[in-house]
Amino acid sequence: MNKGALSNLVVLDLTRVLAGPFCTMLLADMGADVVKIERPDTGDDTRQMGPFVNGESAYYMNLNRNKRGVTLNLKSEKGKKIFLDMVKKADLVVENYRPGTMEKLGLGYEELRKVNDRIIYAAVSGFGHTGPYKMKPGYDIIAQAMSGLMSTTGWPGGEPTRTGTAMGDVLAGLSCAIGILAAVNSRELTGVGQKVDVALVDSAVASLEIINMIYLVEGRVPQRIGNRYESTYPYDSFKAMDGGLVIGAANDKLWQSLCEVMERPELAEDPRYLRVRDRVSHHEEIKPVVEEWTEKHTVEDACRLIDQAGIPCAPIMSIDQVTSDPHIAGDREMFVPVEHPVAGKTTLTGNHIKLSGTPAGIRTASPTLGEHNREVFGEMLGIGDTDLQLLRSEGVL
Amino acid sequence: MNKGALSNLVVLDLTRVLAGPFCTMLLADMGADVVKIERPDTGDDTRQMGPFVNGESAYYMNLNRNKRGVTLNLKSEKGKKIFLDMVKKADLVVENYRPGTMEKLGLGYEELRKVNDRIIYAAVSGFGHTGPYKMKPGYDIIAQAMSGLMSTTGWPGGEPTRTGTAMGDVLAGLSCAIGILAAVNSRELTGVGQKVDVALVDSAVASLEIINMIYLVEGRVPQRIGNRYESTYPYDSFKAMDGGLVIGAANDKLWQSLCEVMERPELAEDPRYLRVRDRVSHHEEIKPVVEEWTEKHTVEDACRLIDQAGIPCAPIMSIDQVTSDPHIAGDREMFVPVEHPVAGKTTLTGNHIKLSGTPAGIRTASPTLGEHNREVFGEMLGIGDTDLQLLRSEGVL
Repeated sequence: MNKGALSNLVVLDLTRVLAGPFCTMLLADMGADVVKIERPDTGDDTRQMGPFVNGESAYYMNLNRNKRGVTLNLKSEKGKKIFLDMVKKADLVVENYRPGTMEKLGLGYEELRKVNDRIIYAAVSGFGHTGPYKMKPGYDIIAQAMSGLMSTTGWPGGEPTRTGTAMGDVLAGLSCAIGILAAVNSRELTGVGQKVDVALVDSAVASLEIINMIYLVEGRVPQRIGNRYESTYPYDSFKAMDGGLVIGAANDKLWQSLCEVMERPELAEDPRYLRVRDRVSHHEEIKPVVEEWTEKHTVEDACRLIDQAGIPCAPIMSIDQVTSDPHIAGDREMFVPVEHPVAGKTTLTGNHIKLSGTPAGIRTASPTLGEHNREVFGEMLGIGDTDLQLLRSEGVL
Repeated sequence: MNKGALSNLVVLDLTRVLAGPFCTMLLADMGADVVKIERPDTGDDTRQMGPFVNGESAYYMNLNRNKRGVTLNLKSEKGKKIFLDMVKKADLVVENYRPGTMEKLGLGYEELRKVNDRIIYAAVSGFGHTGPYKMKPGYDIIAQAMSGLMSTTGWPGGEPTRTGTAMGDVLAGLSCAIGILAAVNSRELTGVGQKVDVALVDSAVASLEIINMIYLVEGRVPQRIGNRYESTYPYDSFKAMDGGLVIGAANDKLWQSLCEVMERPELAEDPRYLRVRDRVSHHEEIKPVVEEWTEKHTVEDACRLIDQAGIPCAPIMSIDQVTSDPHIAGDREMFVPVEHPVAGKTTLTGNHIKLSGTPAGIRTASPTLGEHNREVFGEMLGIGDTDLQLLRSEGVL
């Protein structure tokens, strides 16, 4: 039976909210035993954040499926000792506190490696664990602003624009998973763990591939240019009768095909539009020409005709369309039902990394607060029911 | 000496343009021996794409640093045989062709595993290797449109907006690296490789965390809401005298602090704005109130005052500011010089995944076309100079 590609890894997951939990969600989807450790009584802040179903947070449910959940008060001496005992038996610790928080608790990487030098310690933070800004609080919007991502998203003459999802968090979560798995490979070679330090800001900076190079090499500061692309045209959005679509006629051949589809063969030979660089220079003329054609069609018809000619194109889909798309929701299984004890049957976003031999999957719903205290503390540390009750009454669990 | 976290891995890299090369760049930065295999004579398309420095593509240079480069014609019988001989000695094959291309060459995963069942085969494509759209060409803008990302980026009443970097490519590249490293771990357990299948569209869908859940749970279709956030306020952009800044006063305490900074204590007690949900409902009233204060300050002064009060905030930085920022460019080393034989000293975007024991780094510039033919084909397959010349004259290399 497939237990997942990471079924040998035990993860102590101290992460909260989005970036960290997104990372450990990916590990859990791929079979790691992720033990989410939450504050007693309240737990992860996202348990109180919408959207809700039957009073249960779908924010939390999505990011914490496939994890086991325990409570532990890391400020109590008994809680610290229990945590250190768990570290001895774990492969990974992942946290997304402000830098220095774990050190203040006496649970920084230097302390943890003393009890288990194979432990891999991964930290996600706004600005990283080094440098003058390291103590600044760093939400997603801060990373989008400071990385330059907002400055290059949006329309000429318009305002810098935030990408419509917490992209800084997502990029950092993905990047932290890469760092963790690279450290796991390295541990096979060296026998020891190490610390992985991923910042939201750095992750957003790294995503600005060509944008950074335009400035670093040409000295030109990239601006907001709407939906078109710096290096080719037509590669942009266009209005149809009933909505919008995008066309990626990125090379000369695709441009010629598009002229045929539009029944405008003369444009294909127009010297103003002959080569990629010509079309980029004349993008302001080409957009209305293409739009004159698309506006006479529905999105569906325009996409079908362009698609038949082998030209990349797509409708600009809204979330309700995406979630019911036969390819995305169907074959690619990007939306997956799960049965939750309180919320009932709920649909979550599926795992997008498709492995042929050890496919990822959604096996269990997110834990209720402390759901696995008995199971995890019993299995890992041999703590019995009487002791658990005592620890609970003392506020340790 | 640190050889990197992935120094044991040999990667045959057939990827071109952006998503695939971004993935193998991350592996190479972390020490994998990435052999980039390019078409003879022309190589990767991005060698012809700007921005340029001394005629050398900075697009290519950034994505292909730390890799060795060879040429090989996979359409020739001799080229196929050489590739299969290389597969016997490699850990990974990574490609981002249209699905079916490798099968047509007789080099699909099923063929490759026959000569080396430990091989891990990773494919990045627009729509993935299954489902009705799998043969559709999928550029970044297609993924941004079909995933719903564009539909939720931008301003109320405005158009759906493309994120200002090829985010679909970047997300897929990061995700493919996760799949590869998970498969490497799995191979330690099972002894065999597997296929990793990552789609641009799926990767963008997975990034829409809470956005998907809003529809799946509430049935409400998420809209474009500018720079604010669905779940708290003020968490938005604001205009200052000389530019823009973002403030993330995400909870009640931070809001009260912000009112103090603005010297508007009465707002902190105004019942209309008392709780998070109240401020979200009244965001249209709150934005001008905050902006009345920010507009009286420079970005620098506003950020300093807000920062001193412990409230997350940041200037909206342009790329020239990012590349000279003391934290980002300084301590976090997000822009790194490299000496290229043709381009000379050039600055590239650094690796953002910081590993304490085996730090990633930029060790070598991107290869010139076929630069390592002699070295790689000699080392891996024992092909001598006479045979190399013959293969070159036959158009195999």
